[in-house]
Amino acid sequence: MTAFPLTITLPLAAAPPSLADNTADLDRLKAACAAALPPELAGLPLRVPFARMAPLAAQFRAAGFKGWAIAHNLPGLLELFDFLPEEPKLLPGIALDLGSTHLEASLIDLRSGRTLARRTALNQQVEYGADILTRIHFAAKEEGLRQLQQAAVDSINSLIMQLCQEAAVLPEDIRAAVIAGNTTMAHLLLGLSPYHLCREPYIPLVNAPDPFPAAEIGLRLHPQAMTWLLPSRGSYFGGDLIAGILAVGLDQTEQPAMLIDVGTNAEVVIGGGDWLIACAGAAGPALEGGVARMGMRAAPGAIEQVSIDRESWRLTWRSIADAPPVGICGSGLIDLAAELYLARIIDLRGKFQVEFAEQSEAQRSFVCERLRQRGDELAFMIAEGVSVSQTDLDAMIRSKAAMYAILETLTAQVGLSFEELERIHVAGAFGEHISPRQAVTLGMLPDLPLERFQPAGNTSLAGAELLLRDSGCWARAQEVCRKITYLELNVNQDFMIRFSGSRFIPHTDPGLFPSVPDFSALGISEERRASRPASRPAFASIYPRALF
Amino acid sequence: MTAFPLTITLPLAAAPPSLADNTADLDRLKAACAAALPPELAGLPLRVPFARMAPLAAQFRAAGFKGWAIAHNLPGLLELFDFLPEEPKLLPGIALDLGSTHLEASLIDLRSGRTLARRTALNQQVEYGADILTRIHFAAKEEGLRQLQQAAVDSINSLIMQLCQEAAVLPEDIRAAVIAGNTTMAHLLLGLSPYHLCREPYIPLVNAPDPFPAAEIGLRLHPQAMTWLLPSRGSYFGGDLIAGILAVGLDQTEQPAMLIDVGTNAEVVIGGGDWLIACAGAAGPALEGGVARMGMRAAPGAIEQVSIDRESWRLTWRSIADAPPVGICGSGLIDLAAELYLARIIDLRGKFQVEFAEQSEAQRSFVCERLRQRGDELAFMIAEGVSVSQTDLDAMIRSKAAMYAILETLTAQVGLSFEELERIHVAGAFGEHISPRQAVTLGMLPDLPLERFQPAGNTSLAGAELLLRDSGCWARAQEVCRKITYLELNVNQDFMIRFSGSRFIPHTDPGLFPSVPDFSALGISEERRASRPASRPAFASIYPRALF
Repeated sequence: MTAFPLTITLPLAAAPPSLADNTADLDRLKAACAAALPPELAGLPLRVPFARMAPLAAQFRAAGFKGWAIAHNLPGLLELFDFLPEEPKLLPGIALDLGSTHLEASLIDLRSGRTLARRTALNQQVEYGADILTRIHFAAKEEGLRQLQQAAVDSINSLIMQLCQEAAVLPEDIRAAVIAGNTTMAHLLLGLSPYHLCREPYIPLVNAPDPFPAAEIGLRLHPQAMTWLLPSRGSYFGGDLIAGILAVGLDQTEQPAMLIDVGTNAEVVIGGGDWLIACAGAAGPALEGGVARMGMRAAPGAIEQVSIDRESWRLTWRSIADAPPVGICGSGLIDLAAELYLARIIDLRGKFQVEFAEQSEAQRSFVCERLRQRGDELAFMIAEGVSVSQTDLDAMIRSKAAMYAILETLTAQVGLSFEELERIHVAGAFGEHISPRQAVTLGMLPDLPLERFQPAGNTSLAGAELLLRDSGCWARAQEVCRKITYLELNVNQDFMIRFSGSRFIPHTDPGLFPSVPDFSALGISEERRASRPASRPAFASIYPRALF
Repeated sequence: MTAFPLTITLPLAAAPPSLADNTADLDRLKAACAAALPPELAGLPLRVPFARMAPLAAQFRAAGFKGWAIAHNLPGLLELFDFLPEEPKLLPGIALDLGSTHLEASLIDLRSGRTLARRTALNQQVEYGADILTRIHFAAKEEGLRQLQQAAVDSINSLIMQLCQEAAVLPEDIRAAVIAGNTTMAHLLLGLSPYHLCREPYIPLVNAPDPFPAAEIGLRLHPQAMTWLLPSRGSYFGGDLIAGILAVGLDQTEQPAMLIDVGTNAEVVIGGGDWLIACAGAAGPALEGGVARMGMRAAPGAIEQVSIDRESWRLTWRSIADAPPVGICGSGLIDLAAELYLARIIDLRGKFQVEFAEQSEAQRSFVCERLRQRGDELAFMIAEGVSVSQTDLDAMIRSKAAMYAILETLTAQVGLSFEELERIHVAGAFGEHISPRQAVTLGMLPDLPLERFQPAGNTSLAGAELLLRDSGCWARAQEVCRKITYLELNVNQDFMIRFSGSRFIPHTDPGLFPSVPDFSALGISEERRASRPASRPAFASIYPRALF
């Protein structure tokens, strides 16, 4: 099926008016458009907004009743809003991933589908609160919502300026915007109160807003540019994830496949063609720099890779952009923990062990050199000024346990085993930077052939781009929202049990991870090996609900 | 088929949100609306305008997720724009005939279909020019178009206030407006340049504007009220006539029928179910007070009926509202001319004759008393201060000749005889006040059984009301525009020949009017009887093109 972008151009040539053909200018324009429509769009009603009647008629007449009409390809109708005497060289549209911390956008030529520019920027809302919950509370203050909306709009407008400079186009040339963001980001951008999003029963004001003029919120684009928001499924499952599902085609796969998107939360979806099931849980913070004392986002100076040569007992690391090390990011932490486990410097609970069975001298001196007392706990030094403490590691283990438990719970819910997943798409920086091998070693990802794990990039942006290029994705997105089942984890007992079982490296049941060395017989007492928490821990204490 | 008004109410009751059903407020509202739709509207896309998202969601929530939604029944989609916690007592809409001199409007409850109030007002545009052509020229001046638009809007707003007072409703309660006017009136109301309307090839800027928010032009209604303009067919065939066709059902008749609307022009349409043919010509002025020296519109003091008792030779007259006579309106003029003809005071050319064959003494003294020399011509005195001159009568004869020639040309064009017309709807004041008998005597209307002539009232307003009550008439109106054939009279040679033949009373061929006494053998020379203009008169001299 041919894909049509959200805004289309139509080459027109109409006979000039005469006594024998006294059709009105605008009706002549509409008729010429109707005649120029591709068969797939033929018959759709053509609407002209009130304010565009006079200019369109005048432009059409001035151009001698031929030229190029530009129309928004809206659900069920075409909105004719612009006319050019000459074929436009470019018809730029913008696709945007509106993250709570970062924005990433691309400028795309809707006629050729070509990407003209791509940029990231900070979300200026951070000024009013680093995390979503703070912003939701801030929005309740007088003028708070308006300030947050303005900050989002300002952030986008500044990004638009950068994209335009890079691609040498004018903001007024951009005629469509597609925005994917989580449900709170969408509410704040639209100026809608997020009050109920974080209060039981967690009801958004809107999940699926209709396309609206970009000017309504002050986006600096063409005055008649239309804005399309990817629909959300609920307070905890936003348009960014719906975009991700479209991007990796989880709604169109023949074999079951999975999408993992780790932001502040870990969000996981399995699609089997006819069905989609999703859940989200707070697995992310430790991996994103939100918890570890030295943790940071993947940025220059973040240690992103660590390895320990277990022959020579040398540690090597690499920082992003080869900058002097200033902290450690999620992938670095995973690498480190896996390497520490393989080097037996942490035990299967993730606890530092200074001495252990079958320890060599080289090993002992490596440990003595790197493992230092810091305050009342041990910390492992990676590089000058960058170390990871027991507390950091504990947080890391909780995160990886949550992640694995989420994956297990979700697959079990639909009666699948991990082996039946044809593909596991791993989105975002997490997917881009982690080593699946190390994540499997830790027991964070299931022990599958590594080629099944596929880095998917910014799937939120990719989904927005897809919609920009193919208006058919609008109906597809609404359909995804309708058919997706959302599994609530914080009322799920199975998840709690699985979480407890996952707090070991790689797992309480090492049989689940045949590719990972099993040190459980070495120096760990049988008693400890079989240990499970005496009573099930209160949910909130180990798994504080991070909403987003 | 059930008729649905242009704006509909939907009773809603949705389950309140819960953890098990976390649909967003606005999506819940939309789903409840979709479920409440009657089968005929089911499946139409429901759209919420950007600015209405937050208020609608808040109102729905505040009302406990039940109440009444209000939606515009737009072509191909429903626009949900208002919500009330209680069932509205009334849902007023306004239908308006936007005439170049007068406006007439009615306020209608869209839920019951009941008329709440009806009023007329002057078109304040008259200040900028009594006739349409003057206004078109005025529109070309700086600010001219804007001033004309404002005058139209002010006229409508003042009419709205009067209607609201009469019906005890608020302007903000009115949620839809349907306006029927000629093509120039529509352009000026929309603020669109009428420049090309009066210049060959007479091309409107728009014939069929899409519905638009009333606020766009400053109408004082509900802030989200929608305005619908009846489409025009061309510069000389406006939405007022399309409305008339709908009102009398000329597009749905099984037997051919005719609509005659006499304003400044005579506009005539014949419909035969599958086809419609129309034309317009300057037959009106003499009938509307535009030509006769004593002529005036039908208003208090206008002599509207005249009879001459041919036994007692007494003349009686009646004025509108029984007010002291100040002039004569079209129906009075027709009555007078017919009576003068029957009394043989005018001959078959419409010329006063002081003496004629077989004249009685009573007759002679009646004539001597009434027929006076005025300047260099004769004038017939009806009442103190009201007389009709030979010049007035000549204009009257030209008008009646034009009218009959229009009717003859149009019926001949489709190969019909007058006898085949099942019904002749006569619109407006003309239809309300004239005596068909006298019009037939004059040879203005064809000699058919009188019950075939049916006064149709203000068909422009009636068509607007019809559309307000039945959204299906929107498509019907567009279809009428598509299928109507417009016959240009000023390039039509047959019309010119017929016009010449019609300049006698009742006609050059008295056989066409068997019910009218034929005096042609009495005292009129054979030579004169057979007379036709020696050469065909130049079109412009007898039939100046009045455009509207």
